Amino acid sequence: MSKYALGLDFGTLNGRALLVDVHTGEEVGTSVYAYSCGVIDKSLPGSDIELGLDWALQNPADYIEVLEHAVPDVLQLSGVSPEDVIGIGVDFTSSTILPIDEEGVPLCMYDQWKGHPHSWVKLWKHHAAEPHANRLRDIASMRKEKFISRYGGKVSSEWMLPKIWQVLEEAPEIYKAAHRFIEAGDWIVLQMTGKERRSSCNAGYKAIWDKREGYPSPDFFAALSPDLKDVVRKKLSTDIYPAGSRAGGLTSYMAQKTGLKTGTPVAVGIIDAHAAVPGSTVTGPGKMVLIMGTSTCHMLLDSSQKFIKGIPGVVEDGILPGYFGYEAGQAAVGDSFDWFVSNFTPGFYEKEALEKGITIYDLLEEKACRLKPGENGLLALDWWNGNRSILNNANLSGMILGLNLNTKPEEVFRAMIEATAFGTRMIIDTFVENGVEIEELYACGGMPHKDRMLMQIYADVTGRQIRVAASRQASALGAAMFGALAAGSDGGGYDSIEDAVARMASIEEKRYEPIPENVSIYNRLFDEFRKLHDYFGRGENPVMEFLKAAKF
Amino acid sequence: MSKYALGLDFGTLNGRALLVDVHTGEEVGTSVYAYSCGVIDKSLPGSDIELGLDWALQNPADYIEVLEHAVPDVLQLSGVSPEDVIGIGVDFTSSTILPIDEEGVPLCMYDQWKGHPHSWVKLWKHHAAEPHANRLRDIASMRKEKFISRYGGKVSSEWMLPKIWQVLEEAPEIYKAAHRFIEAGDWIVLQMTGKERRSSCNAGYKAIWDKREGYPSPDFFAALSPDLKDVVRKKLSTDIYPAGSRAGGLTSYMAQKTGLKTGTPVAVGIIDAHAAVPGSTVTGPGKMVLIMGTSTCHMLLDSSQKFIKGIPGVVEDGILPGYFGYEAGQAAVGDSFDWFVSNFTPGFYEKEALEKGITIYDLLEEKACRLKPGENGLLALDWWNGNRSILNNANLSGMILGLNLNTKPEEVFRAMIEATAFGTRMIIDTFVENGVEIEELYACGGMPHKDRMLMQIYADVTGRQIRVAASRQASALGAAMFGALAAGSDGGGYDSIEDAVARMASIEEKRYEPIPENVSIYNRLFDEFRKLHDYFGRGENPVMEFLKAAKF
Repeated sequence: MSKYALGLDFGTLNGRALLVDVHTGEEVGTSVYAYSCGVIDKSLPGSDIELGLDWALQNPADYIEVLEHAVPDVLQLSGVSPEDVIGIGVDFTSSTILPIDEEGVPLCMYDQWKGHPHSWVKLWKHHAAEPHANRLRDIASMRKEKFISRYGGKVSSEWMLPKIWQVLEEAPEIYKAAHRFIEAGDWIVLQMTGKERRSSCNAGYKAIWDKREGYPSPDFFAALSPDLKDVVRKKLSTDIYPAGSRAGGLTSYMAQKTGLKTGTPVAVGIIDAHAAVPGSTVTGPGKMVLIMGTSTCHMLLDSSQKFIKGIPGVVEDGILPGYFGYEAGQAAVGDSFDWFVSNFTPGFYEKEALEKGITIYDLLEEKACRLKPGENGLLALDWWNGNRSILNNANLSGMILGLNLNTKPEEVFRAMIEATAFGTRMIIDTFVENGVEIEELYACGGMPHKDRMLMQIYADVTGRQIRVAASRQASALGAAMFGALAAGSDGGGYDSIEDAVARMASIEEKRYEPIPENVSIYNRLFDEFRKLHDYFGRGENPVMEFLKAAKF
Repeated sequence: MSKYALGLDFGTLNGRALLVDVHTGEEVGTSVYAYSCGVIDKSLPGSDIELGLDWALQNPADYIEVLEHAVPDVLQLSGVSPEDVIGIGVDFTSSTILPIDEEGVPLCMYDQWKGHPHSWVKLWKHHAAEPHANRLRDIASMRKEKFISRYGGKVSSEWMLPKIWQVLEEAPEIYKAAHRFIEAGDWIVLQMTGKERRSSCNAGYKAIWDKREGYPSPDFFAALSPDLKDVVRKKLSTDIYPAGSRAGGLTSYMAQKTGLKTGTPVAVGIIDAHAAVPGSTVTGPGKMVLIMGTSTCHMLLDSSQKFIKGIPGVVEDGILPGYFGYEAGQAAVGDSFDWFVSNFTPGFYEKEALEKGITIYDLLEEKACRLKPGENGLLALDWWNGNRSILNNANLSGMILGLNLNTKPEEVFRAMIEATAFGTRMIIDTFVENGVEIEELYACGGMPHKDRMLMQIYADVTGRQIRVAASRQASALGAAMFGALAAGSDGGGYDSIEDAVARMASIEEKRYEPIPENVSIYNRLFDEFRKLHDYFGRGENPVMEFLKAAKF
C-alpha cells in the first residue's frame, strides 16, 4: 500500500501542493494556487491607502486560500486518500513576517488595524527597512557584537529585526498591539497545528539567532532603541526546532478545510531555497546546491563553522540538523537573461524564432551554442540587480565590455550567461579559499532543465561536475521529505534525512563534465573577471554606486 | 550673370559632383555616381585571385567614371553652361594610393600587372600594412626622428609610406615597375590637368612631409630597408602646393569627357574631411569643425605648432595656407548607433515606429529625448571601433556599465550618444590642456542635420556653443570653394578663402547653447568617463586588448 507525504511550497506569487510517494519518490500530483492579492506594493487591498517606495506586502488570507484550494485539488487529481498522507512539510519565502495577536490572528484581519500598512505581512522583498538594517549593522559593529561575523559583516533590510524595528518607529501602536511578530512560514504551521514552533532555519538565517548564542542580548536591542530592549522576550518565540522536527498534528478545523486527516503530522517550516537541498539529494558536505531561476541561491553543508567575509549566513542546523548550513546568492540570473531577451533582441530574430516554431530564448541559445569560449570577445559583470554575494552591495550594476561593430545579440546573450557562471565561481572560490571544500555541484530550479548550454558553461567555468535534480520542484519535494521526517518511521515515514533522500529524491543521469580545453580558456577569462570584479566592487572605482546614488 | 564652381568629392563608395553659385553659395545641382567595384576586399575584379585579411583595394577606372557620368549629369540637371563653370576643386579619401607609370597610367590597367593585387589602388582602410607601420614607428623612435612628434608619436597603417613599404616587401617587381606612387586625389587632378602637383594636405597628413623639414631623410628610409633609401627621389613627387592652388587647366580630352570647357582651372586636391573646414565657414583659429557621420573627424586651425601626445597630425598649410592644421578623430560614431539600432532594438519598438510612420532611429531619439542627463544611470566608452584619438589604439573596445533590470533600449542608445560626446570632449580637453584654444564648435556631415538631441548633448557635454553648417555636403562645397580659388578673382572666383567663405558658405541660424544645469551634470559624469578612459586605455587594465588578441 503506497503512502504519501505532502509538500507545501509558498512562493512570492503563489502556493504549491505536491504529493510524493514516500517509497518511490514518484510525484503523483501538483496543484498551484495563485495569491489573490499577489505582491501588494501600490496601495492596500480594497483601499486607496498608498504604500511608500520599496514597500512590498502580502495578505495572509492568501496563504490560507492555498490550503483550502491547492490541497483538496491535489488530493482529487492524484486520487490519493487522506488516510495515506502520512506527513506534511512547509517551505516559505523568508524573511516574510507579520504581527499577530494572542490567538494567532494577523492584526491586518481586524477592522481596527486593516487600514494600517504596518499591520500586514511584510514580504521578503519589502526593502523599506534599509535605514534600520544599516543602523543595526553600524551599532553592532561599534559594539563589536560577535554575531555580526556569522553574517559576513552585513545585515540585510530583508531580515526580520530591521523590519520589526521599522514597525516600532513608524507605527508604535502596531508594535504595542502585536502579541508576536512571526515568520509567515511559522505562522502557517501555527494555523495548521495550533502550535507555535519556530524554525531554526528562519531564525538562524533571518533573525540573527544562533543555536549556542541565542538572539542578540537585550543590551544590544536597548542600544538600538530603549523600546526594543525586550523585543525577544515580548515579541518573538524562542521555541526553536530544526527542519524535519514535528510541530504538531493537523487540527480538525484545518483537516476539514483541506480534506486531510486530523492529526496528520506537520513539520516545522523551512525557507524555500533551503528545502531544495535534500530535494536535490544532498545531505552532507562537499556538494553545493544551486537553486537556479530568476536568481540563484547557493547552499552548502559543512561540519565546521567558518566566518567568511561576504557569505551572508552560516547557521548551525540551519538547513539540516548536525551541519552548519551556508547560504550565498546571485540576485539576477534568469531575470537578466529575460531582460535581454525581452528588450534587446531585434525583430528579425523574433521572426526567425517564429518561423522555426521556437522561443526567442531558444533561438539565442541555439546561436550562442555555436560559439566557442572566448570567441565573443566579451566580458561582463553579472550585477544587473546588484551583487548579493560576495560583495553584498545592491548598488552595483551590470557591465559589459569588448563590444564592437560586429557584436551580435547571441554573443551578448552568451556573455551574460558566462558572467553569471563567473559570479558563481567567485562564490565557490571564496568558500574554498576559506577552507570549505566543494567537490561537485547539484543544480535545481527553472534553469537547469531549460538550458543545457548554460549548464555546460557552468561546468567549464567552475571546473566541476554538475548533476541536476530529477525533480522540477525540488523545494516542494524537500518540504514533503520533511513531512515524512515529521511522521517518523513509526508513522510510515523516515527517521533520518538520509533515509528519506534514498527513497524520495533522485538525480538525472546526465552529468555535465568540465571540458578541459574550455576550462583552460575560462580560467584565463575568469582572471580578467576577477580583476574587474575587484576594481568595481571593492572600492577602487565606485562609479557604479555613484551613478546609482547621484541625484542630478 | 551667375558663375559656378564645381566640387568633386570622392568618397569610399561613390563620387559626387556639386555645382555652387560662387556669388550666392546656392547649391544648384548635385549628382552622385557609385563606383562599379566599390571596395575590393574579397578578390580582384573579374578574377578569383583572393585578397588577404585587412586588404581593401579600389579600381581607378571607377574614379574616371565619376567624371564621365556625374559631371555631365550635374550640368544637365542644373542647366548650367560649361562656360559659366569657372573652377574645379577635388577632395578625396586619404591615404588612398596607387602605383602609376611615366604616363600616369595605373599599373593595374596593364594586362601584365592586373593579376597582381599590389598593382591596384590601396584604399585608406587597407590595414594590411600594420606591421610596416609599427616597424616604421619603432625605428623612428629608436633613431629619435623629429618628425614622429608631429604625429603624436604614432604611425598609422593607413598612411602612404607603410603601404609603399608593404609593396616593396611583398611585390618588389611592382615597386620597381612603378614610376610613382601617388595619392588618388593627386592622380585624379593629374588626369584632369596633365600636371602632377601634389597636395600639401595629403603629403603632410599621410606621408610625413613637412613644409620646412620635407620628407624623412634617405638615411631614415635606408634604416627601414636599403631598397627604400631613395623612395622620395625615385617614387614620390616633391612638387607640393597648399589647398586652393591652381594645379592646371582642364585638358581638352577631359573637357570632352566631362562636358566642361577646356582650360577650366583645377585646384590641387585635398582630403575630404579637411575640405569641410571652409565648407563649414571656418577659416581661422578657435573654431573646431566636427565632421560627423559614421565616424567623426575633428579639424582645427591654429597659428602655432604644438606637439600633442595622441593628436595624430599637425601640418603647416595642411588645411588652409598660413595655419597649422590639426586633425583628430573618433572611429565609430554613427556606425555604433546604427549597430545598436539594427541589432538590439526589440520587435515591439519596430512595430511602434512603423505605426508612427517614423524610423526606429527616430523613435529611439524621441524616447531618449525625454530622459534627463544622468537619468539613465549608464556610462559607456565609445570604442566600438577602437580609439583613434587620443589613445590611438585599434584594439580597444566598447564598454557600458550601470545596466540593471529596468534599463531600456533608449537609455542604452542615449548612453552611446553621450559616450561619443565624452570622447569628443576628451579630444577638446587635450587640445586646451596643451595650449590650443577652442571657443566654439562647428558641425557638419550626416548627423548634425538628423539628430537635434545629439547636438544638444554635445553642447552640454563640451560646454560650448555649436553651430551647424548650412550645407549638407560641406566637403564637396569646400572643394568647390577651392575651385573658385584656383580660378582667382581674375577668373571670376576669389583670391582668398575668407572671400570665398563670405559668399559661398553659410551656417544655420539655430545655435545649440550649453544648458548650465546639464553642463554641471555632464561635468560630473565626464570625470567618471575620464577615469574609465584612463583605466582601460592607458595600460592599467589591458583587458580589452587581451580579449581582442587572445587566440583561444
